[in-house]
Amino acid sequence: MKLVYKGKTKDVFELEDGNYLLKFKDDVTGENGVFDPGANTVGLTIEGVGKAGLRLTKLFFERLKEEEIPIHYIKANIEEGTMKVKPATLFGNGLEVICRYRAVGSFMRRYGMYAKEGQELDAFVEVTLKDDARQDPPITEDALSMLGILSLHEYEVLKSLTKKICGIVKDELLKKDIELYDIKLEFGRVGHDKHIALIDEISGGNMRAYKNGEYIEPLQLEKLMLE
Amino acid sequence: MKLVYKGKTKDVFELEDGNYLLKFKDDVTGENGVFDPGANTVGLTIEGVGKAGLRLTKLFFERLKEEEIPIHYIKANIEEGTMKVKPATLFGNGLEVICRYRAVGSFMRRYGMYAKEGQELDAFVEVTLKDDARQDPPITEDALSMLGILSLHEYEVLKSLTKKICGIVKDELLKKDIELYDIKLEFGRVGHDKHIALIDEISGGNMRAYKNGEYIEPLQLEKLMLE
Repeated sequence: MKLVYKGKTKDVFELEDGNYLLKFKDDVTGENGVFDPGANTVGLTIEGVGKAGLRLTKLFFERLKEEEIPIHYIKANIEEGTMKVKPATLFGNGLEVICRYRAVGSFMRRYGMYAKEGQELDAFVEVTLKDDARQDPPITEDALSMLGILSLHEYEVLKSLTKKICGIVKDELLKKDIELYDIKLEFGRVGHDKHIALIDEISGGNMRAYKNGEYIEPLQLEKLMLE
Repeated sequence: MKLVYKGKTKDVFELEDGNYLLKFKDDVTGENGVFDPGANTVGLTIEGVGKAGLRLTKLFFERLKEEEIPIHYIKANIEEGTMKVKPATLFGNGLEVICRYRAVGSFMRRYGMYAKEGQELDAFVEVTLKDDARQDPPITEDALSMLGILSLHEYEVLKSLTKKICGIVKDELLKKDIELYDIKLEFGRVGHDKHIALIDEISGGNMRAYKNGEYIEPLQLEKLMLE
């Protein structure tokens, strides 16, 4: 097994059977020791955060498998903090697909002239480029298509999958009286037919969630979801 | 006649017949005395720039009228530096619609990971909100629709009109061996049926143009086009 990528919160190893192993680390994104799921830098290290993220990812990914949503997930080993996945190719150098149920964060920073902080949004989907140097710019379907990152048809598939997946995550959170405000996903092309599949993870660090009107930190969210 | 709005480069007066009069000023957008069509502040004042902009606008608007493109333009009075227009309502607090033939400026600042400076773009259309405080953020058709600014159908009309109008402007420039790199337009709803029409102006300050590989300043562009 060979290390092929050192990420901000995960390392990626290539396996001999052609699949990949993701090793979850205890680093989370943020700035100056404050967690921020939208940040591009590792802000702090919290013991146990890797395994907690993996456990929550496993919970969601197995739910998604039941629903026959295409995902790269094969299986998870909680003890070792690893997840075995199918090989996937990114769209360009990677996209983040955001689904919003309430107007907060970067949505308000961009569209605050037209939205109220916390207002309900109906599973609004938007895409940003993974490009730290350019602060992950938002991008339209026309630009994605023109730049050869994603076809217009693939964009429709991506949007529809995103709404389905996030609806399932939202419902899982609701069972614990937790409200999902927004969530970011990653997708890639998987298999010989290069179908669009969910990749990466779905853990506390991917979403903003609230309980009784109060924001829940990722690790706390994972505890509440897994207890 | 009553002053209803003092703009960065134009003042707007309401006329007794229900139409409006735009008075072109000698101020241009930019920063620290340097012209920048994308800037939100008045950067400098150049004598004659208002009337030159009006003359070029008149040239384009009369070409567009011939092509039966919906515009708010009624007539221009070059001597007085004024243009009579039909009343129009903005989309939200105003949009800028950009059409790009080459990758420069804010396009490169956002999508430089996937594009080369100056690469050809096939009349690529994008929309930004007019919001100085939030640096005129780009916005997708889905967000425009969700925020009640523009319906998905109106977006299609806007995009198609933009390509048609900019194609005409590009061809006019080509007659003088000038190449259009990008251009920004404004649209509004006009008439009882609230149809989408081009509003504002099309002058040197709205576009980036090059001749023999060299950038042409707005006033120089207007001179070349009007001589």
